[in-house]
Amino acid sequence: MAEQKQIRFGILGCATVARKLARAISLAPNATISAVGSRTAEKAAAFAAETECPATAKIYGSYDAVLDDPDVDAVYIPLPTSLHVRWAVLAAQKKKHILVEKPAALNVAELDQILAACESSGVQFMDGTVWTHHPRTAKMKEFLSDPLRFGQLKSVHSIVSFLVSADSLKNDIRVKPDLDGLGALGDAGWYCIHAILWANDYELPESVTAVREPEVNEAGVILSCGASMKWKDGRVATFYCSFLAIFSTDICAYGTKGKLRVHDFVIPFAPQSAPFYTFESYRLIEHGVAAELPQDVLMVMEFCNLAGSGRAPEKKWAVISRKTQLVVDAVNASIHNGFETIEVVY
Amino acid sequence: MAEQKQIRFGILGCATVARKLARAISLAPNATISAVGSRTAEKAAAFAAETECPATAKIYGSYDAVLDDPDVDAVYIPLPTSLHVRWAVLAAQKKKHILVEKPAALNVAELDQILAACESSGVQFMDGTVWTHHPRTAKMKEFLSDPLRFGQLKSVHSIVSFLVSADSLKNDIRVKPDLDGLGALGDAGWYCIHAILWANDYELPESVTAVREPEVNEAGVILSCGASMKWKDGRVATFYCSFLAIFSTDICAYGTKGKLRVHDFVIPFAPQSAPFYTFESYRLIEHGVAAELPQDVLMVMEFCNLAGSGRAPEKKWAVISRKTQLVVDAVNASIHNGFETIEVVY
Repeated sequence: MAEQKQIRFGILGCATVARKLARAISLAPNATISAVGSRTAEKAAAFAAETECPATAKIYGSYDAVLDDPDVDAVYIPLPTSLHVRWAVLAAQKKKHILVEKPAALNVAELDQILAACESSGVQFMDGTVWTHHPRTAKMKEFLSDPLRFGQLKSVHSIVSFLVSADSLKNDIRVKPDLDGLGALGDAGWYCIHAILWANDYELPESVTAVREPEVNEAGVILSCGASMKWKDGRVATFYCSFLAIFSTDICAYGTKGKLRVHDFVIPFAPQSAPFYTFESYRLIEHGVAAELPQDVLMVMEFCNLAGSGRAPEKKWAVISRKTQLVVDAVNASIHNGFETIEVVY
Repeated sequence: MAEQKQIRFGILGCATVARKLARAISLAPNATISAVGSRTAEKAAAFAAETECPATAKIYGSYDAVLDDPDVDAVYIPLPTSLHVRWAVLAAQKKKHILVEKPAALNVAELDQILAACESSGVQFMDGTVWTHHPRTAKMKEFLSDPLRFGQLKSVHSIVSFLVSADSLKNDIRVKPDLDGLGALGDAGWYCIHAILWANDYELPESVTAVREPEVNEAGVILSCGASMKWKDGRVATFYCSFLAIFSTDICAYGTKGKLRVHDFVIPFAPQSAPFYTFESYRLIEHGVAAELPQDVLMVMEFCNLAGSGRAPEKKWAVISRKTQLVVDAVNASIHNGFETIEVVY
């Protein structure tokens, strides 16, 4: 095998959420951090020190400077969601591959601007949903796809919740209408919706209806919500996402012959042997799937493989992001339109 | 302790579903089968032989004969749901205590006739939902009620499903509009709704909205459906019930400090040590709860304790049945009214 090209990352913004992925970039053999940009050079320098960036990484006091650096092949964008469209479009226009935190955008119109810019520049796009890159996810999919073990999918329920402190519920970036206006729906809900689409082979539901009633903070940002979805052959799904309930990341999928349960799908508690449970032939079976590297490192490696392949970008990830965003938008529309049923069209 | 009065049961109807409870009546120390009635004496005799009824049990070729027998203190009614109101009201009028299979009635108007007859005659009422009588249920409730371990309830999801054969989906009693017109909603759905109410301390939701779309058979009887429910403080619940998916009986309840999971709540796979799972203080704990007797025997014993107590009937069970029926009715109304949100009022 020829030596792989190392993708040189520029990090746009130094949010806490960025630290974990900065470490993943450092650990990925085909990636390196070559630049860190923040609104001040001091913040960028502090971030680089905390995350053990290589000494060669350049420190910038602006995001533009990162985009203008010819030694940057790709950008990782952990900025508040409302800023994604601006910086992802600019980065793509400057021929940088795009790895953007989820939710990919505030709505599908903004995401489409990002995807159009990526398409036009021929750069790779991926959102930062890491769990799909853990080998457990492929193993679970194998079960769901098996007509003898699982049969046809009938119903999926997903929940992602965690407790955000009372203070953060007022002041955190994730609940500021001008920064992450989707609140729990864009954050925890993105995972639920992605999981439901994943279980449905990324087939979009025909329609989505929000569950009465979401909880909101004083600014009207969603702190908890849910929805139901339907497909034309009787398949249904429901989810609940929340900043107000104990830490949970569950998928329960029910088929005509078997069922699947996973209770730590977003981040495996024991990543070296991530468990899931199947009920097949009327027996409960525990499975453990090992991963040689953390799932975020695997995601970075996959992204860099694609970005450095020299081939046309892999569209799969853009399509998955767009479908997830479409359903996020539909839930949001249902919530803001008296819980009416919203049709989903790609 | 004084020797307990033995409650003498008459069984009205010899459906397959009745066999299990006939055995439970035989095993309960404070119950005995004193009469079996069917539409023909031959069917009643065959049933009595199959279920090892005592040799003293009288065999009747009509339900009326059972109700006229002065040696019958209580009746167990496993008839199709559409017949409950007629026979339960008649039985109550003849001063028989009433143990009726679930769903208690086709709708709350019919159930209210039954409950009024029981009230007027001063007889005990209970529906045949057995899982609440397993000691595991009390143990799980202890956890849900603990403000330190579980906190406040935020969301519950329940699923009850099992596969009914293609032939039965056309011809089984449970899917005949004139016999059990509620289909999967009255059968599997009764359990889901009861479980959700149980988790909510039997507080009724403010409103119920059916999930699009139920599946129905050629006669329009529900084969699978679901709904969401809301309480005024942001609590929500969803359920899925089905005759078309693999055997499942799950409750997942999420609180502010902990969560509860049980995957065999209707009938424990291993009744001698029925498991449930809590997540508390960020640790997953498996609990096993032993039962000295099968849960259906425990239900019969509880019923007979109340019926034979000489005190006024215990209203708790009627209230629980009525609340469950109210929510069943609301889901049914939502399904038949364009999935509109139905308010629930006791």
